[in-house]
Amino acid sequence: MHKHKVVIVGAGFGGMQAARSLRHPDIEITIIDRRNHHLFQPLLYQVATTLLATSEIAWPIRSVFRNRPDISTLLGDVVGIDREQKRVVLRDGHTVPFDTLILATGARHAYFGRDEWEPYAPGLKALEDATTIRRRLLLAFERAELETDPKAREALLTFAIIGGGPTGVELAGIIAQLAHHTLVKEFRSIDTRTSRIVLVEAGPRVLPAFHPDLSGYAERALEKIGVTIRTGIPVTSCGEDGIRIGETFVPAQTVIWAAGVQASKAGQWLDCPTDRAGRVIVEPDLTVKGMPEIFVIGDTALVTGPDGKPVPGIAPAAKQQGKYAAGIIRDRLSSKPSPKAFRYRHLGNLATIGPSAAVIELGRIRLKGWLAWWIWGLAHIYFLIGTRSRLAVAMSWLWTAVTGLHSARLITQKETLKGEV
Amino acid sequence: MHKHKVVIVGAGFGGMQAARSLRHPDIEITIIDRRNHHLFQPLLYQVATTLLATSEIAWPIRSVFRNRPDISTLLGDVVGIDREQKRVVLRDGHTVPFDTLILATGARHAYFGRDEWEPYAPGLKALEDATTIRRRLLLAFERAELETDPKAREALLTFAIIGGGPTGVELAGIIAQLAHHTLVKEFRSIDTRTSRIVLVEAGPRVLPAFHPDLSGYAERALEKIGVTIRTGIPVTSCGEDGIRIGETFVPAQTVIWAAGVQASKAGQWLDCPTDRAGRVIVEPDLTVKGMPEIFVIGDTALVTGPDGKPVPGIAPAAKQQGKYAAGIIRDRLSSKPSPKAFRYRHLGNLATIGPSAAVIELGRIRLKGWLAWWIWGLAHIYFLIGTRSRLAVAMSWLWTAVTGLHSARLITQKETLKGEV
Repeated sequence: MHKHKVVIVGAGFGGMQAARSLRHPDIEITIIDRRNHHLFQPLLYQVATTLLATSEIAWPIRSVFRNRPDISTLLGDVVGIDREQKRVVLRDGHTVPFDTLILATGARHAYFGRDEWEPYAPGLKALEDATTIRRRLLLAFERAELETDPKAREALLTFAIIGGGPTGVELAGIIAQLAHHTLVKEFRSIDTRTSRIVLVEAGPRVLPAFHPDLSGYAERALEKIGVTIRTGIPVTSCGEDGIRIGETFVPAQTVIWAAGVQASKAGQWLDCPTDRAGRVIVEPDLTVKGMPEIFVIGDTALVTGPDGKPVPGIAPAAKQQGKYAAGIIRDRLSSKPSPKAFRYRHLGNLATIGPSAAVIELGRIRLKGWLAWWIWGLAHIYFLIGTRSRLAVAMSWLWTAVTGLHSARLITQKETLKGEV
Repeated sequence: MHKHKVVIVGAGFGGMQAARSLRHPDIEITIIDRRNHHLFQPLLYQVATTLLATSEIAWPIRSVFRNRPDISTLLGDVVGIDREQKRVVLRDGHTVPFDTLILATGARHAYFGRDEWEPYAPGLKALEDATTIRRRLLLAFERAELETDPKAREALLTFAIIGGGPTGVELAGIIAQLAHHTLVKEFRSIDTRTSRIVLVEAGPRVLPAFHPDLSGYAERALEKIGVTIRTGIPVTSCGEDGIRIGETFVPAQTVIWAAGVQASKAGQWLDCPTDRAGRVIVEPDLTVKGMPEIFVIGDTALVTGPDGKPVPGIAPAAKQQGKYAAGIIRDRLSSKPSPKAFRYRHLGNLATIGPSAAVIELGRIRLKGWLAWWIWGLAHIYFLIGTRSRLAVAMSWLWTAVTGLHSARLITQKETLKGEV
C-alpha cells in the first residue's frame, strides 16, 4: 500500500512536535535538517556564557526518533521546493518527494539591512554561534590581562549587548556575573570587576513583551548586578572598535547581537507572500494560500490571532502549531471534516536575570525574584529532552550555585578575535 | 624583595604538575599556554567518538590555579627563547622574563615526513582534533544514509585507524561499538552493522608496549566486536578515497591517524641537540646541557633511564618530571646540595578495548577483561581534575552502560567532509 509521505523541513520545536504528533500507520515521515541535532534554543545563551556544555542542550535528531521506524532523518540543506513535482530539492541535487510538506525552518538573526555589522556583533541561533561568542568573551579577558594601554584594556573589558528582549537580558545578566564574581580571583593584572556590561535597547524599556512593572524590576535587578542599561536610543553603527549608540561612541571589543530576526527562505522557495521579516503569511489552518498540502509553522510563519496580533516567535507557539498541523494531516487521511482554525494559547513569558532572579508573566499572574527563578529553572529542565540532559543541566546549575564556577569555559575553534591573525 | 621568576611553558601534565609542586614564598610562577585549558588527553579519544563532551575533560588553566595568587596564567603562543636576556618571546611581540624556565610543550602527531597525509588522516592531540574527528565520523554515516551507489556507500562505512597503540585500539573499539550497537536502530537506508573498522599497525602486534599475551587478548577482543586487524604491513599512502596498506588499496572515507608523534619546537627555540623525533636530549637532572636554568620535561624531552631505554611519553612520566624539576628549583633556592638524577618509576600500562574490556600491566601483574576495565575506569576518574568532572564523566559512562546511548553526538563547526563545499 502507498503510504502518505510527510516531509518535515527543520527540526526545531515546531518540526519535532509535528513529527511526535504525527504517528499514524498510513504515514511515513522524513525529517530534513541542515544540522544533525535538535537544539534547545532557550538555553543557548548559557552555552555562549560558559554555564552549559554544547551537548547538554542538543540531541541528534535521529537518536530522538530511534524508536519510531516510521521516521527517517536526513542531514541535508534544502535549497528549493518543486511544487509541480511535489519534491524538496537539496543542495547536493538529491530530491525528496512529499504528499504533504511541513516547513518549520525557523529564523536567523537579522541586522535590519546592516549585514556588514555581523562580523562585529555575532548573533545567537546555532551551537556554533554560541561557541563563537564564548570564545570572544573569554579571549577578551585573556587579552585584557596582557594589555598595558589603559584605553585598550577598557575596550577589551566592555561588553555590549544589543537588544533588550529575554536573550539580551539573560546574556547581560550572566556576563555581569562572570565578570563581577566568577573570574575575579583568576586574573592577576586586571580587576575583572571593572568590566562594563552595556545593554542597549532601542525601545523605551527592556523586556517589551512583559508588563512594565516587570521591565522595571528587571532593569533595577540588572543595574544591581552591574549592568549599564541604555534604552530609547538605537545603535547607529557597529565596527571593529565598538558601537555607536545614537551619537555616543562606546569602545567595546565584544558585541553581541540579540535584536532582530529574519525568517528562513521558505517564502522564497514557495514564491508566496511574506511580511517584512520574511515570514510566510499563512491561512487560518497554517497552510499556504492555494497550496493545501504545504504547511508553514513556527518562526517562519506569520500567524495572526483573533485579536489581530501576530503569534510570538517562541517555542510553545511553534510546538502548538506543529501539533495542530499533525492533527489536520491525520484528519485528512481519515476524511474527517476540516477542523477549526489554529488558535494560539499563550502560556506566559519567562526571563532570567543573572544567577538568582527571574520574571514570569502567566496571564494576570506576575512573579519576580528567586521564586520566579526556581519556576523558570524547573520549567526549562522539564522541557529538555531526555533524562540524561535533565540530570546534566540540573547538575551544571547546582554546581554553579554551590561553587560559583562555570563548567564550560573553553576557548575552542581556530578563528581568533577579530583583528588577530 | 626580588622573587625568583619561574616561567612554565605548556599546561599539559608536566607543566601543571610542576606548578603544583612549586609552591614557595620566594617564587612567582607564570604559566604560558596557547590554549586556555588543560586537557585530560588520555580520554580525548572518547570526545572524538561521541562518548564524552569537550568540557568534561578540559579545565581553564587559570581556574585550576584560582587559589594560587603566586601563579599567573597567560594565553600566548611562544615562538622563541631569548637565552641572553632570559626571556620567552610570544608571537604578538610580548616577552616574559624568567630566572628559571620549564619547557613542557609536549608533542603533536607526526606523519613521518608525509605531511600531505594530514588532511585525510587527522590525528588526535587537541580538543579541536577531537571535534573534527567526531564530525567526520558522524558525517560518514549521514552521507552513507543518502548514498545510492553501493561502492561509495561501502567506502563511507569503512573507518581506518592507523596505529595500533593504546589510542588506536581505543578508537577502534568505540567506533565498532558505535557502528554495531549504538547507531543500529537510527538509520533507515543503511545497516550500520555492515561498517568495517580496520585497525592498521605496521609492527607485528597491537599494543606493542604491552606483554604479547595482552596484545593477543586485545586482538581477539577487538575482532570479536567487529574490528579487522592488519598488523605487520605499513600504510604506504593516504588519500581522498582511502589508504593503501602495503600493496592493497582500502577505500575508506574516514581515516584517523594514531601513529607517530613529533616533539614540539622547544629544541629549535633552544638550538640544542635533539633526537629524530625532535625531543631535546636532556641532562640527568632534566636541564639542557650548558643551560642549568632551563628544564625540558614531558613528551618534548628525551630522558633515558638507567636501562638505556627512553622514558615513555605518557602522563605519569610527565608528572614525575614536573615534580622533580620543581624539587630541584626549590632546593637551589635554599642552597641545598644537588639531588640525584631523575629516576622514572613506571607505574604500568592501561588500555581499554570497547565498552567492557581492558588490559592492564602493573609490573608483573597482567589483567584483562571486565575487572581490568573497572580498574581502568576508576583510575581515569581519579586522575581527572575536580569533583565536577569526576561526577560528569562517571555519569556519562554510567549512562552509556545503562542505555547504550552516547551523549555527545554533535556535528559542529563549519568545515565539512573533505571534498564537500
